[in-house]
Amino acid sequence: MANITIFGKGKMGQTIGGLLESGGHTIDYIDLEGLQGRKVADIVILAVRYDAIAGLIEENKEHFVGKILIDISNPVNFETWDELVVPAGTSSAEQIAEELPDTKVIKAFNTSSAMMLQTKNVGEGHIPVVHMASDHDDAKKVLTDIIASTGLDSVDVGDLKRAREMEALGFLQMRLTKDQKVSPTGGYLLIK
Amino acid sequence: MANITIFGKGKMGQTIGGLLESGGHTIDYIDLEGLQGRKVADIVILAVRYDAIAGLIEENKEHFVGKILIDISNPVNFETWDELVVPAGTSSAEQIAEELPDTKVIKAFNTSSAMMLQTKNVGEGHIPVVHMASDHDDAKKVLTDIIASTGLDSVDVGDLKRAREMEALGFLQMRLTKDQKVSPTGGYLLIK
Repeated sequence: MANITIFGKGKMGQTIGGLLESGGHTIDYIDLEGLQGRKVADIVILAVRYDAIAGLIEENKEHFVGKILIDISNPVNFETWDELVVPAGTSSAEQIAEELPDTKVIKAFNTSSAMMLQTKNVGEGHIPVVHMASDHDDAKKVLTDIIASTGLDSVDVGDLKRAREMEALGFLQMRLTKDQKVSPTGGYLLIK
Repeated sequence: MANITIFGKGKMGQTIGGLLESGGHTIDYIDLEGLQGRKVADIVILAVRYDAIAGLIEENKEHFVGKILIDISNPVNFETWDELVVPAGTSSAEQIAEELPDTKVIKAFNTSSAMMLQTKNVGEGHIPVVHMASDHDDAKKVLTDIIASTGLDSVDVGDLKRAREMEALGFLQMRLTKDQKVSPTGGYLLIK
Protein backbone atom coordinates (compact mmCIF):
# COMPACT_ATOMS: atom_id res chain seq x y z
CA MET A 1 0.00 0.00 0.00
CA ALA A 2 1.32 3.39 -0.98
CA ASN A 3 1.53 6.79 0.68
CA ILE A 4 0.43 9.45 -1.76
CA THR A 5 0.53 13.23 -1.50
CA ILE A 6 -2.18 15.10 -3.38
CA PHE A 7 -1.72 18.80 -4.01
CA GLY A 8 -5.18 20.33 -4.24
CA LYS A 9 -8.34 19.38 -2.40
CA GLY A 10 -10.83 20.38 -5.11
CA LYS A 11 -13.27 18.02 -6.80
CA MET A 12 -10.69 16.00 -8.75
CA GLY A 13 -8.22 15.91 -5.88
CA GLN A 14 -10.82 14.57 -3.45
CA THR A 15 -12.27 12.19 -6.04
CA ILE A 16 -8.91 10.64 -6.89
CA GLY A 17 -8.01 10.60 -3.20
CA GLY A 18 -11.23 8.75 -2.40
CA LEU A 19 -10.62 6.29 -5.20
CA LEU A 20 -7.10 5.53 -3.99
CA GLU A 21 -8.25 5.23 -0.38
CA SER A 22 -10.77 2.63 -1.57
CA GLY A 23 -7.70 0.66 -2.72
CA GLY A 24 -6.18 0.84 0.74
CA HIS A 25 -3.71 3.67 0.12
CA THR A 26 -3.00 6.58 2.45
CA ILE A 27 -3.54 10.11 1.21
CA ASP A 28 -2.05 13.34 2.49
CA TYR A 29 -3.72 16.41 1.02
CA ILE A 30 -1.78 19.63 0.61
CA ASP A 31 -3.99 22.70 0.25
CA LEU A 32 -3.29 26.27 -0.71
CA GLU A 33 -1.28 26.81 2.48
CA GLY A 34 1.46 24.57 1.12
CA LEU A 35 3.61 21.90 2.73
CA GLN A 36 4.12 23.81 6.03
CA GLY A 37 7.04 21.53 6.87
CA ARG A 38 5.29 18.29 5.89
CA LYS A 39 7.16 15.80 3.71
CA VAL A 40 6.06 14.81 0.25
CA ALA A 41 5.38 11.07 -0.24
CA ASP A 42 7.14 9.07 -2.95
CA ILE A 43 4.08 9.49 -5.17
CA VAL A 44 2.68 12.96 -5.76
CA ILE A 45 -0.49 13.92 -7.60
CA LEU A 46 -0.95 17.47 -8.84
CA ALA A 47 -4.68 18.14 -8.67
CA VAL A 48 -4.64 21.89 -9.05
CA ARG A 49 -5.76 24.03 -11.95
CA TYR A 50 -3.37 24.02 -14.90
CA ASP A 51 -2.54 27.69 -14.40
CA ALA A 52 -1.48 27.02 -10.81
CA ILE A 53 1.00 24.26 -11.73
CA ALA A 54 3.98 26.39 -12.76
CA GLY A 55 3.96 28.32 -9.48
CA LEU A 56 3.48 25.15 -7.44
CA ILE A 57 6.50 23.53 -9.10
CA GLU A 58 8.63 26.62 -8.70
CA GLU A 59 7.85 26.68 -4.98
CA ASN A 60 8.32 22.98 -4.28
CA LYS A 61 10.93 21.92 -6.82
CA GLU A 62 13.37 20.29 -4.40
CA HIS A 63 10.59 18.22 -2.80
CA PHE A 64 9.85 16.48 -6.09
CA VAL A 65 13.38 15.19 -6.77
CA GLY A 66 13.33 11.41 -7.16
CA LYS A 67 9.54 11.22 -6.81
CA ILE A 68 6.80 9.98 -9.11
CA LEU A 69 4.65 12.97 -10.04
CA ILE A 70 1.25 12.53 -11.69
CA ASP A 71 -0.20 15.33 -13.80
CA ILE A 72 -3.98 15.00 -14.15
CA SER A 73 -4.63 18.41 -15.72
CA ASN A 74 -6.82 19.26 -18.68
CA PRO A 75 -5.37 22.59 -19.81
CA VAL A 76 -8.56 23.77 -21.49
CA ASN A 77 -9.27 27.43 -22.22
CA PHE A 78 -12.35 27.63 -19.99
CA GLU A 79 -13.33 31.03 -21.34
CA THR A 80 -13.72 29.97 -24.97
CA TRP A 81 -13.94 26.17 -24.56
CA ASP A 82 -12.43 26.19 -28.04
CA GLU A 83 -8.80 25.23 -27.49
CA LEU A 84 -6.11 24.02 -25.15
CA VAL A 85 -4.02 26.73 -23.52
CA VAL A 86 -0.83 24.67 -23.81
CA PRO A 87 1.13 25.65 -26.95
CA ALA A 88 0.40 23.35 -29.91
CA GLY A 89 2.96 20.58 -30.23
CA THR A 90 3.47 19.98 -26.53
CA SER A 91 1.43 19.11 -23.42
CA SER A 92 1.09 20.11 -19.80
CA ALA A 93 2.87 16.90 -18.76
CA GLU A 94 5.83 17.52 -21.07
CA GLN A 95 6.12 21.09 -19.78
CA ILE A 96 6.26 19.76 -16.20
CA ALA A 97 8.87 17.13 -17.11
CA GLU A 98 11.07 19.84 -18.62
CA GLU A 99 10.95 21.75 -15.34
CA LEU A 100 11.59 18.63 -13.26
CA PRO A 101 14.28 16.52 -14.98
CA ASP A 102 14.89 14.45 -11.82
CA THR A 103 11.23 13.57 -11.31
CA LYS A 104 9.35 10.71 -12.97
CA VAL A 105 6.40 12.49 -14.52
CA ILE A 106 3.29 10.52 -15.52
CA LYS A 107 0.27 11.91 -17.31
CA ALA A 108 -2.76 10.06 -15.94
CA PHE A 109 -6.42 10.32 -14.92
CA ASN A 110 -7.19 13.32 -17.18
CA THR A 111 -9.31 11.22 -19.57
CA SER A 112 -11.42 9.87 -16.68
CA SER A 113 -14.15 12.22 -15.47
CA ALA A 114 -14.77 12.71 -11.76
CA MET A 115 -18.05 10.84 -12.28
CA MET A 116 -16.26 7.81 -13.75
CA LEU A 117 -13.80 7.72 -10.86
CA GLN A 118 -16.54 8.16 -8.22
CA THR A 119 -18.89 5.53 -9.63
CA LYS A 120 -16.16 3.27 -11.08
CA ASN A 121 -18.36 3.15 -14.17
CA VAL A 122 -18.66 4.61 -17.64
CA GLY A 123 -22.30 4.53 -18.64
CA GLU A 124 -23.64 1.43 -16.92
CA GLY A 125 -21.55 -1.62 -16.12
CA HIS A 126 -18.34 -0.59 -17.86
CA ILE A 127 -15.15 -0.30 -15.82
CA PRO A 128 -13.17 2.89 -16.64
CA VAL A 129 -9.75 2.46 -18.18
CA VAL A 130 -7.39 5.02 -16.66
CA HIS A 131 -4.87 6.18 -19.27
CA MET A 132 -1.22 6.84 -18.45
CA ALA A 133 1.78 8.07 -20.42
CA SER A 134 5.35 8.41 -19.19
CA ASP A 135 8.97 7.94 -20.19
CA HIS A 136 9.48 5.91 -16.99
CA ASP A 137 8.27 2.31 -17.22
CA ASP A 138 8.99 1.58 -13.54
CA ALA A 139 6.77 4.48 -12.49
CA LYS A 140 3.97 3.31 -14.79
CA LYS A 141 4.25 -0.16 -13.22
CA VAL A 142 3.75 1.35 -9.75
CA LEU A 143 0.70 3.32 -10.92
CA THR A 144 -0.73 0.33 -12.79
CA ASP A 145 -0.67 -1.71 -9.55
CA ILE A 146 -2.23 1.14 -7.58
CA ILE A 147 -5.06 1.53 -10.10
CA ALA A 148 -5.66 -2.23 -10.13
CA SER A 149 -6.06 -2.12 -6.32
CA THR A 150 -9.03 0.23 -6.76
CA GLY A 151 -10.84 -2.14 -9.13
CA LEU A 152 -10.34 0.08 -12.16
CA ASP A 153 -8.51 -0.94 -15.32
CA SER A 154 -5.62 0.99 -16.88
CA VAL A 155 -3.72 1.30 -20.12
CA ASP A 156 -0.15 2.38 -20.74
CA VAL A 157 -0.43 4.46 -23.90
CA GLY A 158 3.33 4.94 -24.27
CA ASP A 159 5.89 7.69 -23.81
CA LEU A 160 5.12 11.03 -22.18
CA LYS A 161 4.71 12.52 -25.66
CA ARG A 162 1.38 10.72 -25.88
CA ALA A 163 0.12 13.16 -23.24
CA ARG A 164 -0.62 15.37 -26.27
CA GLU A 165 -3.30 12.98 -27.47
CA MET A 166 -4.51 12.29 -23.91
CA GLU A 167 -5.01 16.03 -23.36
CA ALA A 168 -6.84 16.29 -26.69
CA LEU A 169 -9.05 13.37 -25.66
CA GLY A 170 -9.72 14.87 -22.23
CA PHE A 171 -10.66 18.19 -23.81
CA LEU A 172 -12.95 16.57 -26.39
CA GLN A 173 -14.76 14.60 -23.68
CA MET A 174 -15.23 17.67 -21.48
CA ARG A 175 -16.48 19.70 -24.42
CA LEU A 176 -19.00 17.01 -25.44
CA THR A 177 -20.27 16.85 -21.86
CA LYS A 178 -20.53 20.65 -21.65
CA ASP A 179 -22.43 20.70 -24.97
CA GLN A 180 -24.76 17.96 -23.62
CA LYS A 181 -23.84 15.65 -26.47
CA VAL A 182 -22.81 13.24 -23.74
CA SER A 183 -24.53 12.78 -20.37
CA PRO A 184 -22.66 13.36 -17.11
CA THR A 185 -22.37 9.58 -16.63
CA GLY A 186 -21.08 8.99 -20.16
CA GLY A 187 -17.79 9.56 -21.94
CA TYR A 188 -15.13 7.57 -23.73
CA LEU A 189 -14.75 3.90 -22.85
CA LEU A 190 -11.67 2.15 -24.19
CA ILE A 191 -12.70 -1.38 -25.14
CA LYS A 192 -9.59 -3.52 -25.19
CA MET B 1 -31.03 8.03 -50.68
CA ALA B 2 -27.81 9.78 -51.67
CA ASN B 3 -25.32 9.46 -54.48
CA ILE B 4 -21.83 9.53 -53.09
CA THR B 5 -18.47 9.70 -54.83
CA ILE B 6 -15.58 8.02 -53.04
CA PHE B 7 -12.03 8.84 -54.12
CA GLY B 8 -9.90 5.81 -53.35
CA LYS B 9 -10.80 2.15 -53.42
CA GLY B 10 -8.45 0.99 -50.67
CA LYS B 11 -9.54 -0.67 -47.43
CA MET B 12 -11.22 2.37 -45.88
CA GLY B 13 -12.80 3.49 -49.16
CA GLN B 14 -14.38 0.10 -49.75
CA THR B 15 -15.36 -0.31 -46.11
CA ILE B 16 -17.13 3.04 -45.95
CA GLY B 17 -18.64 2.41 -49.39
CA GLY B 18 -19.99 -0.94 -48.21
CA LEU B 19 -21.38 0.63 -45.06
CA LEU B 20 -23.18 3.34 -47.01
CA GLU B 21 -24.51 0.84 -49.56
CA SER B 22 -25.98 -1.09 -46.63
CA GLY B 23 -27.98 2.08 -45.95
CA GLY B 24 -29.31 2.13 -49.50
CA HIS B 25 -26.99 4.76 -50.95
CA THR B 26 -25.26 4.61 -54.34
CA ILE B 27 -21.48 4.75 -54.48
CA ASP B 28 -19.26 5.73 -57.39
CA TYR B 29 -15.61 4.91 -56.78
CA ILE B 30 -12.88 7.00 -58.37
CA ASP B 31 -9.51 5.22 -58.50
CA LEU B 32 -6.02 6.43 -59.37
CA GLU B 33 -7.02 7.03 -62.98
CA GLY B 34 -9.13 10.00 -61.87
CA LEU B 35 -12.55 11.19 -62.94
CA GLN B 36 -12.07 10.45 -66.67
CA GLY B 37 -15.00 12.70 -67.48
CA ARG B 38 -17.30 11.33 -64.79
CA LYS B 39 -19.19 13.80 -62.61
CA VAL B 40 -18.69 14.14 -58.88
CA ALA B 41 -21.80 13.54 -56.75
CA ASP B 42 -23.04 16.14 -54.25
CA ILE B 43 -21.29 14.24 -51.49
CA VAL B 44 -17.64 13.32 -51.87
CA ILE B 45 -15.51 11.19 -49.58
CA LEU B 46 -11.73 11.41 -49.75
CA ALA B 47 -10.48 7.95 -48.88
CA VAL B 48 -6.90 8.28 -50.05
CA ARG B 49 -3.70 8.48 -48.05
CA TYR B 50 -3.13 11.84 -46.38
CA ASP B 51 -0.08 12.56 -48.54
CA ALA B 52 -2.18 12.10 -51.70
CA ILE B 53 -4.87 14.61 -50.69
CA ALA B 54 -3.11 17.86 -51.69
CA GLY B 55 -2.49 16.61 -55.25
CA LEU B 56 -6.01 15.23 -55.56
CA ILE B 57 -7.51 18.58 -54.54
CA GLU B 58 -5.22 20.51 -56.85
CA GLU B 59 -6.31 18.33 -59.76
CA ASN B 60 -10.05 18.35 -59.04
CA LYS B 61 -10.62 21.69 -57.39
CA GLU B 62 -13.44 22.90 -59.64
CA HIS B 63 -15.35 19.62 -59.22
CA PHE B 64 -15.65 20.18 -55.47
CA VAL B 65 -17.30 23.63 -55.63
CA GLY B 66 -20.64 23.57 -53.79
CA LYS B 67 -20.19 19.95 -52.68
CA ILE B 68 -20.00 18.31 -49.27
CA LEU B 69 -16.52 16.83 -48.90
CA ILE B 70 -15.70 14.35 -46.16
CA ASP B 71 -12.11 13.97 -44.96
CA ILE B 72 -11.56 10.62 -43.21
CA SER B 73 -7.76 10.78 -43.01
CA ASN B 74 -5.53 9.99 -40.07
CA PRO B 75 -2.37 11.91 -40.93
CA VAL B 76 -0.07 9.70 -38.85
CA ASN B 77 3.69 9.48 -39.44
CA PHE B 78 3.67 5.78 -40.34
CA GLU B 79 7.47 5.55 -40.19
CA THR B 80 7.83 6.59 -36.56
CA TRP B 81 4.24 6.08 -35.32
CA ASP B 82 5.20 8.83 -32.90
CA GLU B 83 3.41 11.90 -34.24
CA LEU B 84 0.97 13.38 -36.70
CA VAL B 85 2.48 14.79 -39.90
CA VAL B 86 0.08 17.74 -39.96
CA PRO B 87 1.70 20.82 -38.37
CA ALA B 88 0.78 21.24 -34.68
CA GLY B 89 -2.15 23.60 -34.20
CA THR B 90 -4.10 22.56 -37.28
CA SER B 91 -5.60 19.43 -38.86
CA SER B 92 -5.87 17.73 -42.22
CA ALA B 93 -9.51 18.81 -42.46
CA GLU B 94 -8.72 22.47 -41.77
CA GLN B 95 -5.95 22.37 -44.38
CA ILE B 96 -8.45 21.04 -46.94
CA ALA B 97 -11.04 23.68 -46.03
CA GLU B 98 -8.44 26.39 -46.60
CA GLU B 99 -7.81 25.07 -50.10
CA LEU B 100 -11.54 24.71 -50.83
CA PRO B 101 -13.38 27.77 -49.48
CA ASP B 102 -16.49 26.98 -51.57
CA THR B 103 -16.79 23.39 -50.37
CA LYS B 104 -18.47 22.21 -47.18
CA VAL B 105 -15.73 20.19 -45.54
CA ILE B 106 -16.58 17.65 -42.83
CA LYS B 107 -14.11 15.65 -40.79
CA ALA B 108 -15.70 12.25 -40.17
CA PHE B 109 -15.11 8.50 -39.86
CA ASN B 110 -11.44 8.80 -38.86
CA THR B 111 -12.12 7.72 -35.26
CA SER B 112 -13.96 4.59 -36.44
CA SER B 113 -11.69 1.70 -37.45
CA ALA B 114 -12.43 -0.32 -40.59
CA MET B 115 -13.32 -3.22 -38.28
CA MET B 116 -15.92 -1.11 -36.44
CA LEU B 117 -17.49 0.00 -39.71
CA GLN B 118 -17.51 -3.52 -41.16
CA THR B 119 -18.95 -5.25 -38.11
CA LYS B 120 -21.02 -2.28 -36.92
CA ASN B 121 -19.65 -3.04 -33.49
CA VAL B 122 -17.05 -1.89 -31.01
CA GLY B 123 -16.06 -4.85 -28.90
CA GLU B 124 -19.24 -6.89 -28.62
CA GLY B 125 -22.71 -5.41 -28.82
CA HIS B 126 -21.79 -1.73 -28.89
CA ILE B 127 -22.85 0.40 -31.85
CA PRO B 128 -20.03 2.66 -33.09
CA VAL B 129 -20.54 6.41 -32.82
CA VAL B 130 -19.19 8.07 -35.96
CA HIS B 131 -17.69 11.47 -35.07
CA MET B 132 -18.07 14.50 -37.30
CA ALA B 133 -16.83 18.11 -37.16
CA SER B 134 -17.63 20.91 -39.60
CA ASP B 135 -18.41 24.60 -39.81
CA HIS B 136 -21.50 23.73 -41.92
CA ASP B 137 -24.48 22.55 -39.86
CA ASP B 138 -26.56 21.70 -42.94
CA ALA B 139 -23.85 19.39 -44.22
CA LYS B 140 -23.58 17.69 -40.84
CA LYS B 141 -27.35 17.18 -40.86
CA VAL B 142 -27.09 15.40 -44.24
CA LEU B 143 -24.30 13.16 -42.98
CA THR B 144 -26.12 12.46 -39.71
CA ASP B 145 -29.12 11.13 -41.66
CA ILE B 146 -26.89 9.03 -43.93
CA ILE B 147 -25.12 7.47 -40.96
CA ALA B 148 -28.44 6.78 -39.23
CA SER B 149 -29.59 4.91 -42.37
CA THR B 150 -26.71 2.45 -41.88
CA GLY B 151 -27.70 1.62 -38.31
CA LEU B 152 -24.71 3.38 -36.78
CA ASP B 153 -24.88 6.26 -34.34
CA SER B 154 -23.14 9.60 -34.79
CA VAL B 155 -22.08 12.64 -32.82
CA ASP B 156 -21.57 16.22 -33.97
CA VAL B 157 -18.50 17.30 -32.01
CA GLY B 158 -18.65 20.91 -33.20
CA ASP B 159 -16.78 23.20 -35.57
CA LEU B 160 -14.14 21.98 -38.01
CA LYS B 161 -11.47 23.05 -35.51
CA ARG B 162 -12.42 20.00 -33.45
CA ALA B 163 -10.85 17.91 -36.22
CA ARG B 164 -7.64 18.51 -34.26
CA GLU B 165 -8.90 16.44 -31.35
CA MET B 166 -10.53 13.89 -33.69
CA GLU B 167 -7.21 13.37 -35.45
CA ALA B 168 -5.45 13.02 -32.09
CA LEU B 169 -8.06 10.45 -31.03
CA GLY B 170 -7.76 8.54 -34.31
CA PHE B 171 -3.98 8.45 -33.95
CA LEU B 172 -4.12 7.30 -30.32
CA GLN B 173 -6.53 4.49 -31.21
CA MET B 174 -4.37 3.31 -34.13
CA ARG B 175 -1.26 3.42 -31.99
CA LEU B 176 -2.88 1.40 -29.19
CA THR B 177 -4.03 -1.20 -31.73
CA LYS B 178 -0.57 -1.37 -33.32
CA ASP B 179 1.01 -1.80 -29.86
CA GLN B 180 -1.53 -4.57 -29.11
CA LYS B 181 -2.83 -2.69 -26.08
CA VAL B 182 -6.20 -2.93 -27.82
CA SER B 183 -7.48 -5.87 -29.89
CA PRO B 184 -8.44 -5.42 -33.55
CA THR B 185 -12.13 -5.50 -32.56
CA GLY B 186 -11.67 -2.95 -29.76
CA GLY B 187 -11.15 0.80 -29.63
CA TYR B 188 -12.89 3.86 -28.26
CA LEU B 189 -16.63 3.72 -27.67
CA LEU B 190 -18.36 6.99 -26.91
CA ILE B 191 -21.07 6.29 -24.36
CA LYS B 192 -23.62 9.06 -24.53
